Amino acid sequence: MNQSNISINLSDHAKEVATGTTGTQLFADDKDIIAVMVNGQPRDLATTFNDGDAVEPITLGSDQGLAIMRHSAAHVMAQAVQEVRPDAKLGIGPVIKDGFYYDFDVEQPFTPDDLKEIERRMKRIIKSSQSFRRRVVSEDEARAEEAGQPYKQELIGLTEAQIQGDEASEVCDGELSMYDNLDHEGAVVWKDLCRGPHLPNTRYIKALKLMRTAAAYWRGDEKNPMLQRIYGTAWASKEDLKAYMGRLEEAAKRDHRKLGSEMDLFSFPDEIGPGLPVFHPKGAAVINAMEDYSREMHRKNGYSFVQTPHITKGHLYEISGHLQWYKDGMYPPMHLDEERDGDGKVVKQGFDYYLKPMNCPMHNLIFKSRQRSYKELPLRLFEFGTVYRYEKSGEVHGLTRVRGLTQDDSHIYCTREQMRGELKSILEFVLKVLKDFGLNDFYLELSTKDPDKFVGSDEVWEEATSTLAQVGKESGLELRDDPGGAAFYGPKISVQARDAIGRTWQVSTIQLDFNLPERFGLEYIAADGSHQRPVMIHRALFGSIERFFAILLEHYAGAFPAWLAPVQVQAVPVSDDCIPHLQTVVDRLKEHLVRCELDRSDDRFGKKIRNAAKSKAPFILIAGEEDVSKGAVSFRFRDGSQLNGVPVDDAIAWIRQAISRRAQISAVDDFVERTDAVKA
Amino acid sequence: MNQSNISINLSDHAKEVATGTTGTQLFADDKDIIAVMVNGQPRDLATTFNDGDAVEPITLGSDQGLAIMRHSAAHVMAQAVQEVRPDAKLGIGPVIKDGFYYDFDVEQPFTPDDLKEIERRMKRIIKSSQSFRRRVVSEDEARAEEAGQPYKQELIGLTEAQIQGDEASEVCDGELSMYDNLDHEGAVVWKDLCRGPHLPNTRYIKALKLMRTAAAYWRGDEKNPMLQRIYGTAWASKEDLKAYMGRLEEAAKRDHRKLGSEMDLFSFPDEIGPGLPVFHPKGAAVINAMEDYSREMHRKNGYSFVQTPHITKGHLYEISGHLQWYKDGMYPPMHLDEERDGDGKVVKQGFDYYLKPMNCPMHNLIFKSRQRSYKELPLRLFEFGTVYRYEKSGEVHGLTRVRGLTQDDSHIYCTREQMRGELKSILEFVLKVLKDFGLNDFYLELSTKDPDKFVGSDEVWEEATSTLAQVGKESGLELRDDPGGAAFYGPKISVQARDAIGRTWQVSTIQLDFNLPERFGLEYIAADGSHQRPVMIHRALFGSIERFFAILLEHYAGAFPAWLAPVQVQAVPVSDDCIPHLQTVVDRLKEHLVRCELDRSDDRFGKKIRNAAKSKAPFILIAGEEDVSKGAVSFRFRDGSQLNGVPVDDAIAWIRQAISRRAQISAVDDFVERTDAVKA
Repeated sequence: MNQSNISINLSDHAKEVATGTTGTQLFADDKDIIAVMVNGQPRDLATTFNDGDAVEPITLGSDQGLAIMRHSAAHVMAQAVQEVRPDAKLGIGPVIKDGFYYDFDVEQPFTPDDLKEIERRMKRIIKSSQSFRRRVVSEDEARAEEAGQPYKQELIGLTEAQIQGDEASEVCDGELSMYDNLDHEGAVVWKDLCRGPHLPNTRYIKALKLMRTAAAYWRGDEKNPMLQRIYGTAWASKEDLKAYMGRLEEAAKRDHRKLGSEMDLFSFPDEIGPGLPVFHPKGAAVINAMEDYSREMHRKNGYSFVQTPHITKGHLYEISGHLQWYKDGMYPPMHLDEERDGDGKVVKQGFDYYLKPMNCPMHNLIFKSRQRSYKELPLRLFEFGTVYRYEKSGEVHGLTRVRGLTQDDSHIYCTREQMRGELKSILEFVLKVLKDFGLNDFYLELSTKDPDKFVGSDEVWEEATSTLAQVGKESGLELRDDPGGAAFYGPKISVQARDAIGRTWQVSTIQLDFNLPERFGLEYIAADGSHQRPVMIHRALFGSIERFFAILLEHYAGAFPAWLAPVQVQAVPVSDDCIPHLQTVVDRLKEHLVRCELDRSDDRFGKKIRNAAKSKAPFILIAGEEDVSKGAVSFRFRDGSQLNGVPVDDAIAWIRQAISRRAQISAVDDFVERTDAVKA
Repeated sequence: MNQSNISINLSDHAKEVATGTTGTQLFADDKDIIAVMVNGQPRDLATTFNDGDAVEPITLGSDQGLAIMRHSAAHVMAQAVQEVRPDAKLGIGPVIKDGFYYDFDVEQPFTPDDLKEIERRMKRIIKSSQSFRRRVVSEDEARAEEAGQPYKQELIGLTEAQIQGDEASEVCDGELSMYDNLDHEGAVVWKDLCRGPHLPNTRYIKALKLMRTAAAYWRGDEKNPMLQRIYGTAWASKEDLKAYMGRLEEAAKRDHRKLGSEMDLFSFPDEIGPGLPVFHPKGAAVINAMEDYSREMHRKNGYSFVQTPHITKGHLYEISGHLQWYKDGMYPPMHLDEERDGDGKVVKQGFDYYLKPMNCPMHNLIFKSRQRSYKELPLRLFEFGTVYRYEKSGEVHGLTRVRGLTQDDSHIYCTREQMRGELKSILEFVLKVLKDFGLNDFYLELSTKDPDKFVGSDEVWEEATSTLAQVGKESGLELRDDPGGAAFYGPKISVQARDAIGRTWQVSTIQLDFNLPERFGLEYIAADGSHQRPVMIHRALFGSIERFFAILLEHYAGAFPAWLAPVQVQAVPVSDDCIPHLQTVVDRLKEHLVRCELDRSDDRFGKKIRNAAKSKAPFILIAGEEDVSKGAVSFRFRDGSQLNGVPVDDAIAWIRQAISRRAQISAVDDFVERTDAVKA
């Protein structure tokens, strides 16, 4: 090897290059490559290498490439903002899912017109083809260069431990760097304290759009000044941007908050408060169908139902540790049972009572309520347990982030020998139930030990983690690693479900717990008479009923399969003369607990049909004169297809079949396929 | 009429008697008569009459007579206590259900030996045949006579408005009286401030027993001194006392707290706090069976299910008025969402959140969430709503008085024209469901307007009350009046159920409400387009699930009918060889969601059978060698009767039949009668 050469490792081979070679030179023939991964860390394309470095190209279209482009777009946005508002003080400007934001301290919030102007100026900057240049600086140099930027000054002083969340994109402990934007002459036109990496050049920002503004406290703390945040998105092509905007539009149409209101499913009354949903009859009908099915499945699968209160003395959460490490997520206490004498002196101490944030400590008390034998294990306690968690009022979101939620919560106590079989059967059970709800596209995520923060022996972690991994693999699903992502008390496997428009939701979690059995001193008597500690598994299947309901509502865009639909049959008379006949049919269906509505309005038939379609009922039952005379009804399905003149008995039988088979019926063909119905 | 005569009205005729005639003289020929009712007020037998008085005799065995005897027994007890503890200061000594108590301020609490001694002395006093004499006294005289009795002094000064509860038996505004106990020579041996009336003579106290002691704050206020209370019972004959003690023993055997623990149904863990039950798997199984059935019945009867949170901003309970008139029954608030700046100054006001004590305000919000048409009425909203009520920790009692309870709560909104039909169908529905739970002996209580305290027009009250009365009468049940007992917001009809040992429990209530629709401004659009206020009916059927569960547990003494039993089938192998066969049977039953347990212990067969009997399972399934060889099982019922060699298919079918028919199976004959089973 030439002395001035070094050897670097590309993905499939080693390569000898001259010392001082940059990524730009190495990948000069591929204009799609905009950065490099060096030993697993993303770096600017202008980076030089050391001998032995593992080097991989990062293309614009890759996840890493898009993130780098979006970070660069945030810089371009800040530059444009400072053109429009020269006094703007900069906060942080990180990458988020599908885009980026930047926070600014400005006198006046940004208007929609401001956003247009900023976007226009960003496009001009992009076109002007500024290049990005990294410079490592000392803390003193950084402070000098960021004079007049109080927030940057604050960031400069942070230690690793103080850096939180998105701030990591700006600074990292140990090395500070500035990024310059250079014009064609190489003159610095703008600069920002930043960890990087960045694009070689602004022209790689192929398509962008500013989305919206929001107010945000500096460092997320309401005691700090309020900054103005601008959100933007950026993509590798105009087509990708268009597709993204289309997905947003589709998601907006499916927004569960919008559907919830349109379909009269639930509301969040001001009188009650944010994040506390009230389910109207149609929403509760869906929830009930979900719960009924869940109850049936849990009964069939050997779960023992329990029921526990929503409040408890704080002592319980001292035993569990929640009051030490979860207090911020809990509601403030209610002080009870204090007694005072006539002089106001406390004669009997009171207790702090708390709303429960978790069910597990109460289930542990049930386990502990009497001696347990190995013969009782696995003991699978199950509850629809409503828990209350304190979310900031600005952070609640529809049914997906609420202050009160009902978990379909199970805690399973088993012997160490039973652990493997139990985890396997839980995962199978979970996947079967999720599929019955119409979710079919999953991957698994395995969260493993954070070596700096865990309780329990390495050996048990090892066994539990390898068991989870094996069970995950045996499921045949993609298994992604989340190294170090486990909670301190045990490894976890979670089911991530993709919905009808490709979004991913974490639903079920299966979590081992080596902590609580210790804290509660749980024991069982083994076959040899010895006292043993059980293995404890936390398992939520829906996660929370509220959130799962929201996922289903968006997944189906409100057009639920028959068994879940809030209105299963919408009956539409062609004329008032047909109402008595239809009423008889509806009454018969109601006897079988089919959820029906009959349109008795004065609307014309066409309007009634349009209203029926809006209700998203799987079955629209129509009766005209001919139907009445023949003792028949006609079906109309969601796609507009029809099945006419079906004898009433058949109609009732087929509807009941479709419901009990949990079929999704959108067209006459579905109906014929999923029931004994035949096309007329 | 002789000038010195007056005319009094006896039950069926008027009678002329000499002025100054006493009850003692009037009823001299009936030694069973111990007092008189004069114009509806109970009086001493020594009372003289005025012209025109309506006079009825009170016999010792009547409810009134027993109450008077028990009040006299309380005096005798206080006299005996002051013999033993001359320093005892007297509190109050009223009559309660089946007995009496008296409160004493004494240095040391009473011991069981004290009670024996007091009872012995009471019997001696009774035998000594003291007579009671009433004297009206002025306030000054009363104070002088009760010198050294601080509690009596306090009672003397009370106005009508200040007199609370049991204190009314001691004093009444307007007239103070002392009761003397006289010995054979007519000397006063003891006296007490008392409203009376009393027995003519202590010898009418035919049978008595002191029951227990308890501590109680003077006037129920924990800021006051703690007094020592002695409870006693007294009856018109030794046989009645014996029967009463037998009933107590039977009730103690059925005490739901005892059964709940013995049958592993529920517990009240110290870590959670008093009045907050935790339902173990077997208890939750019964609760679930109750709820499943309730859900089915409510669905079939046109109820719309809703679901509402357990906490809310206080504003909601300001609208409803609960924070004004029910605050003592509510938990203290949790203050949320307050934001402060760096200097601790509040920059955003927070809100007081409360645990909900009632569901109705939330249901009203659902009614109000959109415009309602008369076509939607009656709208019957239903929820298993868990509410939290602050009971003092000393006042909670098992599941019958708890701090958190789940109501099977319905609020029905209807037009005034629909009110009658709706009330009728609610009462029918309620009675049908109660009967399905095995309660068959009811009476109704109609609580009518308190003329001093009501909202709404006389006319609406009139109509509602007469409708409730008519609906009550049409039910064919006994209808008792509770005049003036209605809440201020509307009349109520309640169902009182008698259990297996003759105790009465208030279960269902049907309550009209003329207040909340006003406060919430509830409206619907009538057929003529006008805005109208709906009639609102509150209805709880079980009352609370926890309390109803306790009632059923005591009613059945734990031996639930098959559909409710926590363990429906207890399988007992004659030997270990029979286990695989029985396991197959159990597995098949479990597929049908039958709750089974299989005894795999090392106990001998006899012990297993005894344990099975203790489990109170309706079906004990036994398999011996002959059963195994024939593919059969044998049934053993609660009374010990058996049905042998039943083919497994038949056994499974018959068990399922008994469950679905909600049959109470205690003997082979029940089984044969309630299923297709035939005696072998």
